[in-house]
Amino acid sequence: MGRWLEDAQGRLQHSALELFGERGFEQTTVADIADRAGVTERTFFRYFADKREVLFAGSRELQAAVVEAIASAPSTLSPLDTACGALSSGGSLFVRAYSQQRSAVIAANPSLHERELLKLATMGAAVAGALRARGVSDENAAVAAETAMTVFKLAFERWISDPGSGEFEQCSTDVLRQLRQLTG
Amino acid sequence: MGRWLEDAQGRLQHSALELFGERGFEQTTVADIADRAGVTERTFFRYFADKREVLFAGSRELQAAVVEAIASAPSTLSPLDTACGALSSGGSLFVRAYSQQRSAVIAANPSLHERELLKLATMGAAVAGALRARGVSDENAAVAAETAMTVFKLAFERWISDPGSGEFEQCSTDVLRQLRQLTG
Repeated sequence: MGRWLEDAQGRLQHSALELFGERGFEQTTVADIADRAGVTERTFFRYFADKREVLFAGSRELQAAVVEAIASAPSTLSPLDTACGALSSGGSLFVRAYSQQRSAVIAANPSLHERELLKLATMGAAVAGALRARGVSDENAAVAAETAMTVFKLAFERWISDPGSGEFEQCSTDVLRQLRQLTG
Repeated sequence: MGRWLEDAQGRLQHSALELFGERGFEQTTVADIADRAGVTERTFFRYFADKREVLFAGSRELQAAVVEAIASAPSTLSPLDTACGALSSGGSLFVRAYSQQRSAVIAANPSLHERELLKLATMGAAVAGALRARGVSDENAAVAAETAMTVFKLAFERWISDPGSGEFEQCSTDVLRQLRQLTG
Protein backbone atom coordinates (compact mmCIF):
# COMPACT_ATOMS: atom_id res chain seq x y z
CA MET A 1 0.00 0.00 0.00
CA GLY A 2 2.99 2.32 0.38
CA ARG A 3 2.83 3.00 -3.30
CA TRP A 4 -0.46 4.87 -3.00
CA LEU A 5 1.04 7.33 -0.55
CA GLU A 6 3.81 8.30 -2.90
CA ASP A 7 2.02 8.24 -6.23
CA ALA A 8 -0.74 10.84 -6.85
CA GLN A 9 -2.05 9.02 -9.92
CA GLY A 10 -2.39 5.72 -8.08
CA ARG A 11 -3.95 7.43 -5.09
CA LEU A 12 -6.51 9.12 -7.35
CA GLN A 13 -7.41 5.78 -8.94
CA HIS A 14 -7.77 4.14 -5.56
CA SER A 15 -9.89 7.01 -4.16
CA ALA A 16 -12.10 7.12 -7.25
CA LEU A 17 -12.82 3.42 -7.06
CA GLU A 18 -13.66 3.64 -3.36
CA LEU A 19 -16.05 6.54 -3.96
CA PHE A 20 -17.69 4.94 -7.01
CA GLY A 21 -18.31 1.86 -4.87
CA GLU A 22 -19.65 3.84 -1.90
CA ARG A 23 -21.80 6.47 -3.66
CA GLY A 24 -22.15 5.25 -7.21
CA PHE A 25 -20.34 6.53 -10.29
CA GLU A 26 -22.87 9.25 -11.19
CA GLN A 27 -22.95 10.65 -7.65
CA THR A 28 -19.18 11.06 -7.40
CA THR A 29 -17.53 14.28 -8.59
CA VAL A 30 -13.93 15.00 -9.56
CA ALA A 31 -13.79 17.31 -6.52
CA ASP A 32 -14.77 14.37 -4.25
CA ILE A 33 -12.05 12.19 -5.77
CA ALA A 34 -9.32 14.83 -5.48
CA ASP A 35 -10.39 15.56 -1.91
CA ARG A 36 -10.24 11.88 -0.88
CA ALA A 37 -6.83 11.52 -2.53
CA GLY A 38 -5.56 14.67 -0.80
CA VAL A 39 -4.73 16.52 -4.01
CA THR A 40 -6.23 19.45 -5.93
CA GLU A 41 -8.65 19.12 -8.85
CA ARG A 42 -5.89 20.61 -10.97
CA THR A 43 -3.72 17.62 -10.08
CA PHE A 44 -6.59 15.27 -11.01
CA PHE A 45 -6.80 16.82 -14.48
CA ARG A 46 -3.04 16.45 -14.93
CA TYR A 47 -3.59 12.68 -15.03
CA PHE A 48 -7.16 12.13 -16.26
CA ALA A 49 -9.48 13.88 -18.73
CA ASP A 50 -12.56 13.08 -16.61
CA LYS A 51 -13.76 10.71 -13.90
CA ARG A 52 -14.59 7.98 -16.40
CA GLU A 53 -11.02 7.90 -17.66
CA VAL A 54 -9.83 6.91 -14.18
CA LEU A 55 -11.38 3.50 -14.84
CA PHE A 56 -9.89 3.10 -18.32
CA ALA A 57 -6.46 4.67 -17.93
CA GLY A 58 -4.69 1.30 -17.84
CA SER A 59 -6.14 -0.06 -21.07
CA ARG A 60 -3.73 1.68 -23.43
CA GLU A 61 -0.70 0.36 -21.54
CA LEU A 62 -2.23 -3.11 -21.42
CA GLN A 63 -2.85 -3.06 -25.15
CA ALA A 64 0.72 -1.91 -25.87
CA ALA A 65 2.12 -4.70 -23.66
CA VAL A 66 -0.04 -7.31 -25.40
CA VAL A 67 0.95 -6.14 -28.89
CA GLU A 68 4.61 -6.15 -27.87
CA ALA A 69 4.32 -9.68 -26.43
CA ILE A 70 2.78 -10.92 -29.69
CA ALA A 71 5.57 -9.32 -31.74
CA SER A 72 8.25 -10.99 -29.63
CA ALA A 73 6.64 -14.43 -29.24
CA PRO A 74 8.53 -17.45 -30.64
CA SER A 75 7.68 -17.96 -34.31
CA THR A 76 6.89 -21.63 -33.64
CA LEU A 77 3.81 -20.77 -31.54
CA SER A 78 0.41 -21.07 -33.23
CA PRO A 79 -1.56 -17.82 -33.77
CA LEU A 80 -4.06 -18.75 -31.05
CA ASP A 81 -1.38 -19.68 -28.51
CA THR A 82 0.52 -16.50 -29.35
CA ALA A 83 -2.53 -14.31 -28.76
CA CYS A 84 -3.70 -16.17 -25.64
CA GLY A 85 -0.21 -16.14 -24.15
CA ALA A 86 0.19 -12.40 -24.70
CA LEU A 87 -3.23 -11.59 -23.19
CA SER A 88 -2.60 -13.94 -20.31
CA SER A 89 0.70 -12.27 -19.39
CA GLY A 90 -0.98 -8.87 -19.76
CA GLY A 91 -3.71 -10.02 -17.38
CA SER A 92 -1.16 -11.28 -14.87
CA LEU A 93 -0.42 -7.61 -14.09
CA PHE A 94 -3.94 -7.10 -12.72
CA VAL A 95 -4.45 -6.84 -8.95
CA ARG A 96 -7.42 -8.96 -7.93
CA ALA A 97 -9.00 -6.69 -5.28
CA TYR A 98 -8.72 -3.64 -7.56
CA SER A 99 -10.11 -5.60 -10.53
CA GLN A 100 -13.06 -6.87 -8.48
CA GLN A 101 -13.98 -3.36 -7.31
CA ARG A 102 -13.58 -1.94 -10.80
CA SER A 103 -15.75 -4.67 -12.34
CA ALA A 104 -18.51 -4.07 -9.78
CA VAL A 105 -18.55 -0.34 -10.62
CA ILE A 106 -18.65 -1.05 -14.36
CA ALA A 107 -21.37 -3.70 -14.06
CA ALA A 108 -23.56 -1.21 -12.16
CA ASN A 109 -23.48 1.39 -14.94
CA PRO A 110 -24.56 0.55 -18.54
CA SER A 111 -22.60 3.42 -20.10
CA LEU A 112 -19.40 2.25 -18.37
CA HIS A 113 -20.17 -1.32 -19.46
CA GLU A 114 -20.55 -0.12 -23.05
CA ARG A 115 -17.24 1.72 -22.83
CA GLU A 116 -15.51 -1.38 -21.42
CA LEU A 117 -16.84 -3.48 -24.30
CA LEU A 118 -15.57 -0.91 -26.80
CA LYS A 119 -12.09 -0.98 -25.20
CA LEU A 120 -12.09 -4.79 -25.44
CA ALA A 121 -13.17 -4.65 -29.09
CA THR A 122 -10.33 -2.20 -29.77
CA MET A 123 -7.92 -4.58 -28.07
CA GLY A 124 -9.22 -7.47 -30.22
CA ALA A 125 -8.54 -5.43 -33.35
CA ALA A 126 -5.01 -4.63 -32.10
CA VAL A 127 -4.35 -8.32 -31.40
CA ALA A 128 -5.50 -9.23 -34.93
CA GLY A 129 -3.22 -6.52 -36.34
CA ALA A 130 -0.24 -7.81 -34.36
CA LEU A 131 -0.88 -11.35 -35.65
CA ARG A 132 -1.10 -10.11 -39.26
CA ALA A 133 2.25 -8.37 -38.72
CA ARG A 134 3.68 -11.83 -37.99
CA GLY A 135 2.44 -13.07 -41.37
CA VAL A 136 -0.83 -14.69 -40.19
CA SER A 137 -3.54 -14.46 -42.87
CA ASP A 138 -6.36 -11.91 -42.39
CA GLU A 139 -8.98 -14.58 -41.74
CA ASN A 140 -6.88 -16.62 -39.33
CA ALA A 141 -5.77 -13.47 -37.52
CA ALA A 142 -9.40 -12.39 -37.05
CA VAL A 143 -10.55 -15.78 -35.76
CA ALA A 144 -7.50 -16.30 -33.50
CA ALA A 145 -7.73 -12.77 -32.07
CA GLU A 146 -11.45 -12.95 -31.31
CA THR A 147 -11.10 -16.42 -29.81
CA ALA A 148 -8.21 -15.24 -27.64
CA MET A 149 -10.32 -12.25 -26.48
CA THR A 150 -13.08 -14.69 -25.52
CA VAL A 151 -10.59 -16.73 -23.48
CA PHE A 152 -9.32 -13.51 -21.88
CA LYS A 153 -12.81 -12.30 -20.91
CA LEU A 154 -13.88 -15.67 -19.52
CA ALA A 155 -10.59 -16.09 -17.63
CA PHE A 156 -11.05 -12.64 -16.15
CA GLU A 157 -14.63 -13.37 -15.02
CA ARG A 158 -13.54 -16.63 -13.44
CA TRP A 159 -10.54 -15.04 -11.77
CA ILE A 160 -12.49 -12.23 -10.11
CA SER A 161 -15.55 -14.29 -9.14
CA ASP A 162 -13.99 -17.55 -7.94
CA PRO A 163 -11.43 -17.20 -5.13
CA GLY A 164 -10.33 -20.81 -5.71
CA SER A 165 -9.54 -20.23 -9.37
CA GLY A 166 -5.82 -19.51 -8.86
CA GLU A 167 -3.75 -16.87 -10.63
CA PHE A 168 -4.92 -15.13 -13.78
CA GLU A 169 -2.61 -17.14 -16.04
CA GLN A 170 -3.94 -20.38 -14.56
CA CYS A 171 -7.53 -19.26 -15.31
CA SER A 172 -6.52 -18.45 -18.86
CA THR A 173 -4.89 -21.87 -19.32
CA ASP A 174 -7.97 -23.59 -17.86
CA VAL A 175 -10.42 -21.71 -20.10
CA LEU A 176 -8.35 -22.39 -23.23
CA ARG A 177 -8.19 -26.10 -22.37
CA GLN A 178 -11.96 -26.12 -21.87
CA LEU A 179 -12.53 -24.30 -25.15
CA ARG A 180 -10.39 -26.92 -26.92
CA GLN A 181 -12.51 -29.67 -25.38
CA LEU A 182 -15.75 -27.99 -26.45
CA THR A 183 -14.58 -27.41 -30.02
CA GLY A 184 -12.85 -30.76 -30.40
CA MET B 1 -39.91 -3.50 -51.94
CA GLY B 2 -43.73 -3.66 -51.78
CA ARG B 3 -43.48 -4.42 -48.08
CA TRP B 4 -42.08 -0.99 -47.28
CA LEU B 5 -45.08 0.68 -48.85
CA GLU B 6 -47.53 -1.20 -46.68
CA ASP B 7 -45.68 -1.34 -43.40
CA ALA B 8 -45.06 1.95 -41.54
CA GLN B 9 -42.54 0.38 -39.17
CA GLY B 10 -40.48 -1.09 -42.00
CA ARG B 11 -40.70 2.15 -43.96
CA LEU B 12 -39.46 4.11 -40.95
CA GLN B 13 -36.50 1.75 -40.54
CA HIS B 14 -35.65 2.01 -44.20
CA SER B 15 -35.93 5.82 -44.22
CA ALA B 16 -33.90 6.19 -41.03
CA LEU B 17 -31.08 4.07 -42.40
CA GLU B 18 -31.03 6.05 -45.66
CA LEU B 19 -30.88 9.35 -43.78
CA PHE B 20 -28.24 8.16 -41.30
CA GLY B 21 -26.12 7.13 -44.28
CA GLU B 22 -26.68 10.38 -46.19
CA ARG B 23 -26.42 12.95 -43.37
CA GLY B 24 -24.94 11.06 -40.43
CA PHE B 25 -26.77 9.77 -37.38
CA GLU B 26 -26.36 12.93 -35.28
CA GLN B 27 -27.58 15.21 -38.05
CA THR B 28 -30.80 13.27 -38.61
CA THR B 29 -33.94 14.11 -36.60
CA VAL B 30 -37.05 12.07 -35.90
CA ALA B 31 -38.96 14.67 -37.93
CA ASP B 32 -36.68 13.99 -40.92
CA ILE B 33 -37.26 10.26 -40.64
CA ALA B 34 -41.03 10.54 -40.33
CA ASP B 35 -41.11 12.95 -43.25
CA ARG B 36 -39.08 10.65 -45.52
CA ALA B 37 -41.30 7.71 -44.54
CA GLY B 38 -44.45 9.74 -45.21
CA VAL B 39 -45.84 9.41 -41.68
CA THR B 40 -46.24 11.73 -38.69
CA GLU B 41 -43.78 11.96 -35.79
CA ARG B 42 -46.57 10.55 -33.65
CA THR B 43 -46.53 7.43 -35.79
CA PHE B 44 -42.75 7.21 -35.39
CA PHE B 45 -43.11 7.19 -31.61
CA ARG B 46 -45.74 4.49 -31.79
CA TYR B 47 -42.97 2.13 -32.97
CA PHE B 48 -39.70 3.51 -31.56
CA ALA B 49 -38.67 5.30 -28.35
CA ASP B 50 -36.04 7.37 -30.19
CA LYS B 51 -33.99 7.41 -33.40
CA ARG B 52 -31.35 5.11 -31.92
CA GLU B 53 -33.91 2.39 -31.24
CA VAL B 54 -34.67 2.19 -34.96
CA LEU B 55 -31.27 0.51 -35.34
CA PHE B 56 -31.74 -1.90 -32.45
CA ALA B 57 -35.43 -2.76 -32.68
CA GLY B 58 -34.73 -6.19 -34.16
CA SER B 59 -32.36 -7.39 -31.47
CA ARG B 60 -35.02 -8.49 -28.97
CA GLU B 61 -36.79 -10.61 -31.58
CA LEU B 62 -33.47 -12.07 -32.73
CA GLN B 63 -32.55 -12.98 -29.16
CA ALA B 64 -35.95 -14.61 -28.54
CA ALA B 65 -35.60 -16.66 -31.75
CA VAL B 66 -32.09 -17.78 -30.79
CA VAL B 67 -33.13 -18.79 -27.25
CA GLU B 68 -36.11 -20.70 -28.67
CA ALA B 69 -33.88 -22.50 -31.21
CA ILE B 70 -31.51 -23.57 -28.42
CA ALA B 71 -34.39 -24.88 -26.32
CA SER B 72 -35.73 -26.97 -29.20
CA ALA B 73 -32.39 -28.27 -30.56
CA PRO B 74 -31.82 -32.05 -30.57
CA SER B 75 -30.38 -33.17 -27.24
CA THR B 76 -27.60 -35.04 -29.04
CA LEU B 77 -26.00 -31.79 -30.31
CA SER B 78 -22.95 -30.51 -28.40
CA PRO B 79 -23.36 -27.19 -26.50
CA LEU B 80 -21.18 -25.35 -29.03
CA ASP B 81 -23.02 -26.77 -32.07
CA THR B 82 -26.35 -25.99 -30.40
CA ALA B 83 -25.41 -22.36 -29.80
CA CYS B 84 -23.74 -21.85 -33.19
CA GLY B 85 -26.67 -23.48 -35.01
CA ALA B 86 -29.21 -21.27 -33.24
CA LEU B 87 -27.25 -18.07 -33.92
CA SER B 88 -26.67 -19.09 -37.50
CA SER B 89 -30.36 -19.63 -38.18
CA GLY B 90 -31.11 -16.32 -36.42
CA GLY B 91 -28.57 -14.62 -38.68
CA SER B 92 -30.10 -16.19 -41.78
CA LEU B 93 -33.05 -13.80 -41.33
CA PHE B 94 -30.80 -10.79 -41.97
CA VAL B 95 -31.04 -8.98 -45.30
CA ARG B 96 -27.54 -8.29 -46.62
CA ALA B 97 -28.05 -4.78 -48.07
CA TYR B 98 -29.85 -3.60 -44.93
CA SER B 99 -27.18 -5.16 -42.68
CA GLN B 100 -24.40 -3.53 -44.66
CA GLN B 101 -25.98 -0.07 -44.41
CA ARG B 102 -26.72 -0.55 -40.72
CA SER B 103 -23.16 -1.67 -39.97
CA ALA B 104 -21.70 1.35 -41.78
CA VAL B 105 -23.86 3.71 -39.69
CA ILE B 106 -22.89 1.97 -36.45
CA ALA B 107 -19.17 1.87 -37.31
CA ALA B 108 -19.23 5.63 -37.92
CA ASN B 109 -20.56 6.46 -34.43
CA PRO B 110 -18.77 5.27 -31.26
CA SER B 111 -21.86 5.54 -29.05
CA LEU B 112 -23.83 3.34 -31.47
CA HIS B 113 -20.90 0.93 -31.62
CA GLU B 114 -20.90 0.74 -27.82
CA ARG B 115 -24.64 0.08 -27.81
CA GLU B 116 -24.24 -2.67 -30.42
CA LEU B 117 -21.54 -4.35 -28.30
CA LEU B 118 -23.79 -4.21 -25.24
CA LYS B 119 -26.65 -5.83 -27.20
CA LEU B 120 -24.27 -8.59 -28.31
CA ALA B 121 -23.06 -9.12 -24.74
CA THR B 122 -26.69 -9.38 -23.62
CA MET B 123 -27.31 -11.94 -26.35
CA GLY B 124 -24.25 -13.93 -25.19
CA ALA B 125 -25.64 -14.02 -21.65
CA ALA B 126 -29.02 -15.19 -22.98
CA VAL B 127 -27.34 -17.95 -25.02
CA ALA B 128 -25.44 -19.13 -21.91
CA GLY B 129 -28.70 -19.11 -19.93
CA ALA B 130 -30.48 -21.16 -22.62
CA LEU B 131 -27.63 -23.72 -22.57
CA ARG B 132 -27.77 -23.98 -18.77
CA ALA B 133 -31.52 -24.61 -19.07
CA ARG B 134 -30.59 -27.69 -21.16
CA GLY B 135 -28.42 -28.99 -18.31
CA VAL B 136 -25.04 -27.69 -19.55
CA SER B 137 -22.72 -26.79 -16.63
CA ASP B 138 -22.17 -23.11 -15.82
CA GLU B 139 -18.57 -23.13 -17.03
CA ASN B 140 -19.25 -25.04 -20.25
CA ALA B 141 -22.30 -22.85 -20.97
CA ALA B 142 -20.21 -19.69 -20.56
CA VAL B 143 -17.38 -20.92 -22.80
CA ALA B 144 -19.70 -22.37 -25.47
CA ALA B 145 -21.90 -19.25 -25.53
CA GLU B 146 -18.99 -16.82 -25.82
CA THR B 147 -17.30 -18.94 -28.47
CA ALA B 148 -20.55 -19.13 -30.44
CA MET B 149 -20.91 -15.32 -30.19
CA THR B 150 -17.38 -15.00 -31.59
CA VAL B 151 -18.32 -17.25 -34.52
CA PHE B 152 -21.50 -15.21 -35.04
CA LYS B 153 -19.66 -11.87 -35.06
CA LEU B 154 -16.91 -13.09 -37.39
CA ALA B 155 -19.44 -14.75 -39.71
CA PHE B 156 -21.42 -11.51 -39.82
CA GLU B 157 -18.34 -9.44 -40.66
CA ARG B 158 -17.35 -11.85 -43.42
CA TRP B 159 -20.89 -12.00 -44.79
CA ILE B 160 -21.32 -8.22 -45.11
CA SER B 161 -17.80 -7.45 -46.32
CA ASP B 162 -17.12 -10.29 -48.77
CA PRO B 163 -19.67 -10.62 -51.60
CA GLY B 164 -18.25 -14.05 -52.44
CA SER B 165 -18.77 -15.41 -48.95
CA GLY B 166 -22.15 -17.02 -49.64
CA GLU B 167 -25.17 -17.08 -47.35
CA PHE B 168 -24.93 -16.22 -43.66
CA GLU B 169 -25.22 -19.85 -42.58
CA GLN B 170 -22.36 -20.77 -44.91
CA CYS B 171 -20.16 -18.05 -43.36
CA SER B 172 -20.99 -19.35 -39.92
CA THR B 173 -20.09 -22.93 -40.89
CA ASP B 174 -16.83 -21.72 -42.46
CA VAL B 175 -15.81 -19.68 -39.42
CA LEU B 176 -16.60 -22.53 -37.01
CA ARG B 177 -14.53 -24.93 -39.12
CA GLN B 178 -11.66 -22.45 -39.12
CA LEU B 179 -11.92 -21.97 -35.37
CA ARG B 180 -11.76 -25.76 -34.92
CA GLN B 181 -8.60 -25.84 -37.03
CA LEU B 182 -6.98 -23.03 -35.04
CA THR B 183 -7.81 -24.60 -31.69
CA GLY B 184 -7.00 -28.17 -32.77
